[in-house]
Amino acid sequence: MKAQGRPRMRDWGLAPGTLPPGPSNGITDIAGVRVGHTTLVSGDGALCPGQGPVRTGVTVVLPHGDDLFLQKVRAAVHTINGYGKACGFEQVRELGLIEAPIALTNTLNVGLVADALIEHAVRDHPGIGVTTSSVNVVVGETNDGYLNDVQGRHVRAEDVFAAIECASPGPVREGAVGAGTGTSCFGWKGGIGTASRVLPAEAGGFTIGALVQTNFGSPEQLVVLGIPVGRHVLPAEDPSDACMDDGSVMVVLATDAPMTARQLHRLCVRAGAGLARTGSVHGHGSGDFVIGFSTTCRLAHHPDAIVRDCPVVIDEARVMQGCFSAVVESVEEAVLNTLWRAQTMVGRDGHVRQALPLEDVARVAERYGRRPREG
Amino acid sequence: MKAQGRPRMRDWGLAPGTLPPGPSNGITDIAGVRVGHTTLVSGDGALCPGQGPVRTGVTVVLPHGDDLFLQKVRAAVHTINGYGKACGFEQVRELGLIEAPIALTNTLNVGLVADALIEHAVRDHPGIGVTTSSVNVVVGETNDGYLNDVQGRHVRAEDVFAAIECASPGPVREGAVGAGTGTSCFGWKGGIGTASRVLPAEAGGFTIGALVQTNFGSPEQLVVLGIPVGRHVLPAEDPSDACMDDGSVMVVLATDAPMTARQLHRLCVRAGAGLARTGSVHGHGSGDFVIGFSTTCRLAHHPDAIVRDCPVVIDEARVMQGCFSAVVESVEEAVLNTLWRAQTMVGRDGHVRQALPLEDVARVAERYGRRPREG
Amino acid sequence: MKAQGRPRMRDWGLAPGTLPPGPSNGITDIAGVRVGHTTLVSGDGALCPGQGPVRTGVTVVLPHGDDLFLQKVRAAVHTINGYGKACGFEQVRELGLIEAPIALTNTLNVGLVADALIEHAVRDHPGIGVTTSSVNVVVGETNDGYLNDVQGRHVRAEDVFAAIECASPGPVREGAVGAGTGTSCFGWKGGIGTASRVLPAEAGGFTIGALVQTNFGSPEQLVVLGIPVGRHVLPAEDPSDACMDDGSVMVVLATDAPMTARQLHRLCVRAGAGLARTGSVHGHGSGDFVIGFSTTCRLAHHPDAIVRDCPVVIDEARVMQGCFSAVVESVEEAVLNTLWRAQTMVGRDGHVRQALPLEDVARVAERYGRRPREG
Amino acid sequence: MKAQGRPRMRDWGLAPGTLPPGPSNGITDIAGVRVGHTTLVSGDGALCPGQGPVRTGVTVVLPHGDDLFLQKVRAAVHTINGYGKACGFEQVRELGLIEAPIALTNTLNVGLVADALIEHAVRDHPGIGVTTSSVNVVVGETNDGYLNDVQGRHVRAEDVFAAIECASPGPVREGAVGAGTGTSCFGWKGGIGTASRVLPAEAGGFTIGALVQTNFGSPEQLVVLGIPVGRHVLPAEDPSDACMDDGSVMVVLATDAPMTARQLHRLCVRAGAGLARTGSVHGHGSGDFVIGFSTTCRLAHHPDAIVRDCPVVIDEARVMQGCFSAVVESVEEAVLNTLWRAQTMVGRDGHVRQALPLEDVARVAERYGRRPREG
Repeated sequence: MKAQGRPRMRDWGLAPGTLPPGPSNGITDIAGVRVGHTTLVSGDGALCPGQGPVRTGVTVVLPHGDDLFLQKVRAAVHTINGYGKACGFEQVRELGLIEAPIALTNTLNVGLVADALIEHAVRDHPGIGVTTSSVNVVVGETNDGYLNDVQGRHVRAEDVFAAIECASPGPVREGAVGAGTGTSCFGWKGGIGTASRVLPAEAGGFTIGALVQTNFGSPEQLVVLGIPVGRHVLPAEDPSDACMDDGSVMVVLATDAPMTARQLHRLCVRAGAGLARTGSVHGHGSGDFVIGFSTTCRLAHHPDAIVRDCPVVIDEARVMQGCFSAVVESVEEAVLNTLWRAQTMVGRDGHVRQALPLEDVARVAERYGRRPREG
Repeated sequence: MKAQGRPRMRDWGLAPGTLPPGPSNGITDIAGVRVGHTTLVSGDGALCPGQGPVRTGVTVVLPHGDDLFLQKVRAAVHTINGYGKACGFEQVRELGLIEAPIALTNTLNVGLVADALIEHAVRDHPGIGVTTSSVNVVVGETNDGYLNDVQGRHVRAEDVFAAIECASPGPVREGAVGAGTGTSCFGWKGGIGTASRVLPAEAGGFTIGALVQTNFGSPEQLVVLGIPVGRHVLPAEDPSDACMDDGSVMVVLATDAPMTARQLHRLCVRAGAGLARTGSVHGHGSGDFVIGFSTTCRLAHHPDAIVRDCPVVIDEARVMQGCFSAVVESVEEAVLNTLWRAQTMVGRDGHVRQALPLEDVARVAERYGRRPREG
Repeated sequence: MKAQGRPRMRDWGLAPGTLPPGPSNGITDIAGVRVGHTTLVSGDGALCPGQGPVRTGVTVVLPHGDDLFLQKVRAAVHTINGYGKACGFEQVRELGLIEAPIALTNTLNVGLVADALIEHAVRDHPGIGVTTSSVNVVVGETNDGYLNDVQGRHVRAEDVFAAIECASPGPVREGAVGAGTGTSCFGWKGGIGTASRVLPAEAGGFTIGALVQTNFGSPEQLVVLGIPVGRHVLPAEDPSDACMDDGSVMVVLATDAPMTARQLHRLCVRAGAGLARTGSVHGHGSGDFVIGFSTTCRLAHHPDAIVRDCPVVIDEARVMQGCFSAVVESVEEAVLNTLWRAQTMVGRDGHVRQALPLEDVARVAERYGRRPREG
Repeated sequence: MKAQGRPRMRDWGLAPGTLPPGPSNGITDIAGVRVGHTTLVSGDGALCPGQGPVRTGVTVVLPHGDDLFLQKVRAAVHTINGYGKACGFEQVRELGLIEAPIALTNTLNVGLVADALIEHAVRDHPGIGVTTSSVNVVVGETNDGYLNDVQGRHVRAEDVFAAIECASPGPVREGAVGAGTGTSCFGWKGGIGTASRVLPAEAGGFTIGALVQTNFGSPEQLVVLGIPVGRHVLPAEDPSDACMDDGSVMVVLATDAPMTARQLHRLCVRAGAGLARTGSVHGHGSGDFVIGFSTTCRLAHHPDAIVRDCPVVIDEARVMQGCFSAVVESVEEAVLNTLWRAQTMVGRDGHVRQALPLEDVARVAERYGRRPREG
């Protein structure tokens, strides 16, 4: 798990919360869930809008490995701060389901990535818009324009297809990959991160996982396990360089707990608490969006029946409290994993986002009574 | 106003409601508002997905003729039935403003049209994503797949640019134009329609206008001025041909009443009542979305001040009742105008959408005590 | 069904829509649903605030005849226009269930009626707040202050208990009874009304019913079956007497279709279309609220299991379209039933609300091509 | 400020965040805001439902000292977790204003307290419901049933009137007073707390304050300034005694920043992050509600004009970021102040809520690198 040279947060021997993670401590611990990235890095030096340098990509999350259009999953979305361009949310709110891969990318690329997902669905389902209904695609984004030629919208259909093709279960690559290639987090290099939690058997034994694309926060806000790291460890670059207004974070939640859209929405709301624990105040320009789905019940595109039976967890403290804690812990750890795993990236106009210096963080942690196993 | 061969509803001498319309009885009666269409009609015969036949287009509404990114307007959105793919809504909800042309198109074309609007903004504002924030674009859609090769996503960037270029004040072309080229309404040919109302001086003298893209309803539901036309006048085609699930309607509201986003949202809610009066039940598959804006107060992209003064109407019956009635009447008449103005269209696979036979409607109207001036 | 001297709308031989009503054409056609009223009429002459005259009451709707706290039902709420004091909505939104009788009353009486419902629940369940959780009560209201000493808050706990005690299945008393005793509708005497619709077997055969408390609209807005009655039939009183700002309408929807809270919310949204068909524009001061529940699945207060199976209708046009039409038709007819059934009421300060003169309406109807069986 | 024997959090020399507090570090730092409490403590021993012991009360927040009905203030509400009985929210959402004192009390007392607020408004404004519109009252609550005879609904109208009468600017009494008399927080004695922050001049120099009624959280969740206190300091009582499902928290936010309802809603959303920093996961049964208002612009009940000019802060990072941080910091500190100030309380059935042992917390804080000035 130390590929790419940097450890995950938990490799420190410290981690948020008290619930145990799943086997790979990632969103793919929920059976069936797959993640794929296409990472685009090319060019150096001065920004030539439309040309590069390119520091961006796309990350897809598939609720399962089968045909999502034919076997939809129950889902919900939640907007904490709507300063962002996420698309596909209206239909998820209305129908409570997801029927295509969820894609994350850069802000100005949402249109093209949405179009690519439509193309992908149409290829597999020639009846879309002809003999059957249309398809709703969900795309999230953050603005990687500090490092990337965001105007270039370099993520093209083939990049989206490639991410879907390569999407796989098992450990998720984190850091400056896919949609996290060019993003920043608390003034450091951010990116993609993931984590998961397993509930005790008496709370149903369900697994909950989060995957985040981090691009939010100012350096002095960073909090790690409650430690005000941002008061002590700051990047060399002038943070005012950043387009502060456009930081954002996308959170994808998955669970095998059988939940209705209403219940999944309750989960999504708790993602905000996970972000808050890392220092977020849901900044003005930070589009903070959450997408959640449950893999348990698959809804056929053309059901024969008029009524179906679908298992649903009971809205009681017993299960829900565990689920809520699992969301908060997973999101907090997933955000930290983006900082732990992402390596320094130099982008357009020589802009640099340093990797979070883990040794410095470790020193601060010790000052605050926490002794990481390694730093 | 009888261009394109068919009259507007009001040319009948009958019209919904009691408030007077503005000079052109359209959304362009609000000073500054411009509307532009690009209409795409090509090919005939069997559907060749991705090739044609093409019966689609794009319609843009510009809140004013100046630079929308630099001079934003206050706005709101409302989702009556979220079974649709409208994009850009999250940021309008959060910030209460619109900063780019509003575009309407076909369902599968939303991604490409959104991308075109981004391209358009970036061309005019090279600082987007580089030295300033990103841009939020709003796109609405309905599914014209009964007549159109919707999979082809034939509306390209140059079509969007052309619609913006040609957008003009004054009378709006209605019927099977722009985003309404291939749409259906109550089993007849629908399309684009518009209408407006002027409040009395004691209610502020404000103007409110609506523009709609109609693609909803089944034939038997059609109500015209309270008359159950759908019980008497039915199209020859088998209505079961239609992708019933995907009918939708987009409503754009404009006003010069100075309103906050909250107040504009109140207006948007009333659009539902206007639709209901034409027979809509906000059908399961009908994405019914409303976008509203006020032209009165322009919000600078880079304000110098920390606080601004903006006029706001008082939330009192005196003004708001008039505004609400104006919305309901405008939306009802705009929907009817799509039916009155749209001419018969033959599309893919020989699918035909007949123009609403106005003579037959007139006969029914007389039976119900209404004598149109002409039919 | 002609008790109280005036017919129901349908006794005219005309009625909104095309779906058949249930046996009693009321919300009680949904098996188990009970309705009870307490009607308070006393005093005459000049208003003596706190003393009278009294023209008010309370109406309760019970989703079933068993213990609602122990056997909750799935539910949703929807606010069309939030200018009103309905209470209990937050928890229904969060948990999607109702666990106490739904009560309707006058605007200033909501606090006392809510307190009475709490008292009622506590009596039956001494563990509330002691050994188990609290209870959520839902109360709706409209302002009957034109006829009633609304400041007096004359509905007391014993009146609420009496309404619950006497709640029964079968035909519902309509007009100036219960919470409708002192209300006005389109400048005429309004009150309580109800109606129902039965879906065809291929759409599941479900029943949907509405009960309304009407207190909205100005005389010229009234529309009956699409006929602009308000242009021809006006009350003698000066409508400016009315507290126009405070008209409101409460809608309660019931169904035996097995639905989640999300689906019930979709039903609730369609109630707006039913109101619109009677002439409503959801006026500025009209708190238009909708409460919907499904009787099919009862949720135990203390479930043993962690997961339950609950039937759910499929979100498809087949069933949902029928349900939506049923809601629209039921609400429209329920509103008209309040006008048909309510008798003239003289209230405080000699204020009079005339019963809608059905003969005049019949004459207008004939002019508009509709020949009622009786008038 | 050390009245009642225990210090405020900040007296430790440590406090959340970096922004400076206002003069009294409370919601009353916003000019005009007043707070009043009525504290009800009587009886001991075994619970006799309806009789006692009584450990409850009411706390009122007045946006200004003048007539609130005649001079309303702009406001917003936000529901983080809707498992609660707060009332009056619908109209605040619709009209964006508050027109009566905001009251907090116990869960089952909401009806009676709402009724008392109505009574209070009617006394001052005999025209309510007679010659003018009705009044909307906002009441929040948490469940103090662990210590209090909550079924008794002991807060009566005179208690509400007394709290309004005695409401004053200046330092706010905190801890087990008013609506916080019987509440619990993280298994310790909670109650009422407050805090404030002042923005730098370049961000407008505005003041933001929070007042909270805390009744949420389980002991092991408690986090103080990022320190996981709940892992080290636990109450002696069995936490399973508590009605875990019913913990809740009410947050009232005030500011002199001129804001629309939309902007105030953005502030309210950030209260969630403040709660999260103290360890909250917005537990299943925790009704987490936020009410926010701006004192700057007073809206007349009977305005003469149709349009008014009201100052509004610009939605830019410059001001909004500061406001958001101020909310988060104020809410976090207000919650901690409830724990710091509240003294041990013995309630019904001998139930005990210990005061948080500040010496133990100080010891833990030192272990985590924080040295409080006093403990």
